Order: sequence, then C-alpha cells, then structure tokens
Amino acid sequence: MPAALAADAAPANLPSWNDGDVKSAIVDFVTRVTTEGGPDYVAVPDRIAVFDNDGTLWTEQPAYFQALFINDRVRALAPEHPDWKEKEPFASLLKGDVAGVAASGEKGLVELAMATHAGVTTEEFNKIVSDWFATARHPRFDRPYNEITFLPMRELLDYLRANGFKTVSGGGIEFMRPMTEQMYGIPPEQVIGSSITTKYELEGDTPVLMREPTIDFIDDGPGKPVGINKFIGRRPIFAAGNSDGDYEMLRWVTSAPRARFGLIVHHTDGEREWAYDRQSHVGKLDKALTEAPERGWQLVDMKADWNRVYAFEK
Amino acid sequence: MPAALAADAAPANLPSWNDGDVKSAIVDFVTRVTTEGGPDYVAVPDRIAVFDNDGTLWTEQPAYFQALFINDRVRALAPEHPDWKEKEPFASLLKGDVAGVAASGEKGLVELAMATHAGVTTEEFNKIVSDWFATARHPRFDRPYNEITFLPMRELLDYLRANGFKTVSGGGIEFMRPMTEQMYGIPPEQVIGSSITTKYELEGDTPVLMREPTIDFIDDGPGKPVGINKFIGRRPIFAAGNSDGDYEMLRWVTSAPRARFGLIVHHTDGEREWAYDRQSHVGKLDKALTEAPERGWQLVDMKADWNRVYAFEK
Repeated sequence: MPAALAADAAPANLPSWNDGDVKSAIVDFVTRVTTEGGPDYVAVPDRIAVFDNDGTLWTEQPAYFQALFINDRVRALAPEHPDWKEKEPFASLLKGDVAGVAASGEKGLVELAMATHAGVTTEEFNKIVSDWFATARHPRFDRPYNEITFLPMRELLDYLRANGFKTVSGGGIEFMRPMTEQMYGIPPEQVIGSSITTKYELEGDTPVLMREPTIDFIDDGPGKPVGINKFIGRRPIFAAGNSDGDYEMLRWVTSAPRARFGLIVHHTDGEREWAYDRQSHVGKLDKALTEAPERGWQLVDMKADWNRVYAFEK
Repeated sequence: MPAALAADAAPANLPSWNDGDVKSAIVDFVTRVTTEGGPDYVAVPDRIAVFDNDGTLWTEQPAYFQALFINDRVRALAPEHPDWKEKEPFASLLKGDVAGVAASGEKGLVELAMATHAGVTTEEFNKIVSDWFATARHPRFDRPYNEITFLPMRELLDYLRANGFKTVSGGGIEFMRPMTEQMYGIPPEQVIGSSITTKYELEGDTPVLMREPTIDFIDDGPGKPVGINKFIGRRPIFAAGNSDGDYEMLRWVTSAPRARFGLIVHHTDGEREWAYDRQSHVGKLDKALTEAPERGWQLVDMKADWNRVYAFEK
C-alpha cells in the first residue's frame, strides 16, 4: 500500500486459527476496510458483521440446542400436563421416541415450541432460559452449552469488534438474548432472528409482555436478509454462516459494491466436533458449498483451519 | 449524597430548557443512575432511553410528516397512474380534498401508504425518502423537515448519550432511518417501529429486498412495548412520548423496579408550535395527561419549559 495510507487496524489476535488462506483473507479484508484513504475503506458505522449462530458460533449437533431445551422443558412441564402422556407429539417426546416426534411433522414441532415458549411473560421466559443454561449439559461433552461455542469464531468476533465492527447474531431471539453477551460479547439488541409474538397485558396493575403461541418471524433462508434489514437497517459488509439456510444472507451481503466478506464454516472434523454437509438433516450445506468458489466465499475447513475448536480443549 | 459516592455524570448541557421542575427532575435522574455505588446506579448497557418521534422529537402538525410525504409521493407518481384521477382515495387526494381522503377510512389510508411505500427495493425507497427530505419544506415554516425538530429534545438526547445512554426512537422505520443519524444522532439500528414486509428477490442475478404491500407491524399504543422488546430485548429505563399512543410504553417502562423516568411533551405553545391535547385528532393526549401525576411522569409544558423550540429561532 502507498506510504500515505496508514492502516489503523487493531492486530489480529486469532491464535486458534492456523495460518492459511482463510486467516489471511480475514486479516486482509479487515486491513483493507480499516485503511483510511484506501480504496476499500469503510466508515465505522457501516462496519456491520452478521453471524449465523447454530453451527457457526456454536455446535448444532446432535440437535439444535433450542430443540434440546424444548425436550427438557416438556419433561419439566409434564407433571402439570397429564394429558401429554396420550397426546402427540408430547407422548413420543416423553418416551424418547425421536421418530415418533418427527412423524408429527412441522405442525407437531410448532406445537412443542409453543407449549414451551409461550404462556409466560418475557421476564419469566428470560429466567427459564437463564436457569436452563446454568444447569443443562451437552449430551456428548457433558459441559454447559455456553462452553460448546467455537473458540476461533469468538476470537474472530473480538478481532472484528477491536476494529470498529458491530457484531450481530441470530437465532431464536429470546432463547439467545439472555446468553449472547456473556458468550460472545453480543448485547441483546444485536440479536435478531426468529420470534413469537408478545402482547401487552396488565397483571393486576402491572404491565407485562405475555408470550403468545403465534410465530412472529422465522429467521431462515430468504428470511435472513429480511430480518437483518428490519432490525439493523443497513446492509452488513461481513456475513458468516454454515448451511444453505445462510445462502440468501451470504448472497445479499456479498453482492453489494465494494469490499464484502462471506465466510462459511464447513464441519469437517468428526473427531473434535462433527463432520457433515450435503446430506445432513441438520445444517445441510450443499448449494452454498457448491457456489462458494464462484461467489468468493471463504470456506473454513474446521479440521485444517482451526487448531482448537472449543476453549476447554487442552 | 455521601462523600464516598462520586457522581460521574457528564454535565447537563440543556440551554434551551428553562430552570424548573422538569429540568431538575431530568438532571436528578441522570445523576442518580450514573452515581456508582449509589442506590439507583444503572450499569451502562442497561441505560436505554426510548423516544417517540412524532410530536416528541419533531412536530406532528399540521399532519404527520409521513402523511405529507405520502401526499407528495402520490402527486409525483400520478402521471404513471392515470386511473388515480377516478379512483378513491387517490382522486380526493389529488384534488386536495382532505375530507374525501378521510372518508375512505383506514382502508383508504393503508392503500395510499402501500401505493407510495411498496413496489420498490429497500435501497430505492431509501433514496426516495432521502430525496424528499432534501427538497420538501414544511408548509408553515417553509424549511426542510429536519429543521422542524425540537432543539430541547435534541439537547436531551445528547445529554443522555454523554451519560452512557443508548437512545432509541420509533416511527415508520424506513421513513425515519435515512434521517435519524443526522437529525438526532440515532443510527438506523436504533430506529424501531412500524414497517411493511420485505421479500428477498433476485433482479437478474442481483439479490434485492423488495417492499411488499403488506403491513408487518404497527408501532402504536400496546404495540410500542412489544416493538421495543422485540428490537431491543431490554426494558428501557427512560421513555418519552407526547400522546395516548405512548401510554402503554410509559406504563411498561416506568413500572419496573428501581429508577425509571417517564416524560410527556405537552403541546402548549400555539404561537411557536401548536397547542393541543385532549380533543386533538393528531397526537391526542388525554388518558396519559390525566394519569401523569399519579404515575410520576414529568409533563413538559412546552411554552413554559422551553426557551427555544426550534434551532432556527433567534
């Protein structure tokens, strides 16, 4: 770069990333957008980076963590609902019959979600989620879910923020919000995504927001850019995902003019984490994997690019 | 306060506010929530302040500015829609027949809103709005709309931000977002409120978000706390409004435990701005005015409390 251009980038502190093309591309991008006077300079307010959560910032196996939460909640609530023993999909879930739950289809899954996510105030639900995170443990690693987050991605979040980026993530909004600040340094207002509706009500003379059994918004596929635009109101310059559910987000973010960055976490490590892509029922990565080279999206090969996956590894 | 407690509040720079109860209450509140170790101390991330926009941060007379935008847009688009000359509510609007437009009811108003807000991409709409703000002038003051903002409220926004507050405002999201950073120092992602739906589409091979003629969310009355919770995920500690449409927001914000602040701008100045409250068709302030004393909400008497309303006054 010409001597007149001074990069003011904060140094890349990415110790869990092996040297290689992906790490170089990340550092190069951050340096370019933070180099004042350079052709790719981006003003601080426009430095927005969006991260999918399931499979991108934390593990999504053996099932989405929110599905594991639902499973636990149905069991916890079952004593208050004796009819669930005979009523699908609750009966199958209580018997641990995954195929039976799956047979209830989308309608059944929505019913499970509503039974465990609605009918309480926003503050009650916040406490339910916080308590679950404090006690529940991941079935394979036997550790709290907030430890099943990807250390290299947390380093990446920190690195971007150190360079003036605002980092945003998605997921079930009120499932993620109680935890993201502690886990990722992402405050509640930068968590966007799927939600159910809430309704203003008075409990006696006290206003509350009651969670209603109605879906407000599903944050997946073409809904992702819609949600980002609705919540953030600017097109991000950086997007990270791991599945075809992130395809439209990646397209929308990286098709705008000037410097843009698309990153895909490819789950290639069956030993330390999981290995899956085109055929997976969770986090299927097919179309986005095929198109990554032509679109200029960086593919993270988890096995090769990350020397640590989780912080608890030695 | 005990000598051990040091207030770290940034000084109150509120020159357009006359000394009096409201100004004292504001300064007292900010001092209390920023006094570390004090009983009312609030950590910086929880210092969220929400401001209604129409009638609170800027004028809402002789009509909501977004309605005046709709009026201008229908006229601008009319040559492309010759059928509008015969079709209500467009025909009445083009004739300047306000009563005729009103006779079309809510259905007619929604039709006008959709004809002027949908059918373009988010980026096209952003440009349409920005162009309008650059050229349109307020009918009474003959000045751009961004000058018809209340100087004392802009000072209040600055004062809160200087004390670690995040300031949030509402309104028609994509009508406000192109302007709020410049007008109020509020970035797009802190503008929440009413919106229509958007849809991810490809124009050729380029992804765009197309604005659809469907209402996504109306930010008024009991919808205000719902929208704040959805977008922000925390209950604010400060709320400002000016009408009964802000009643539920004020109740929800100020009913939580610990230090909370509710403020109502009472339009009492028929000379410098407008005077209206209980009987007004725009910004009706009745229930919230009655309950303000018992709820502890501060009533701004525009005529008495503000020595300047707009920055352009001498």
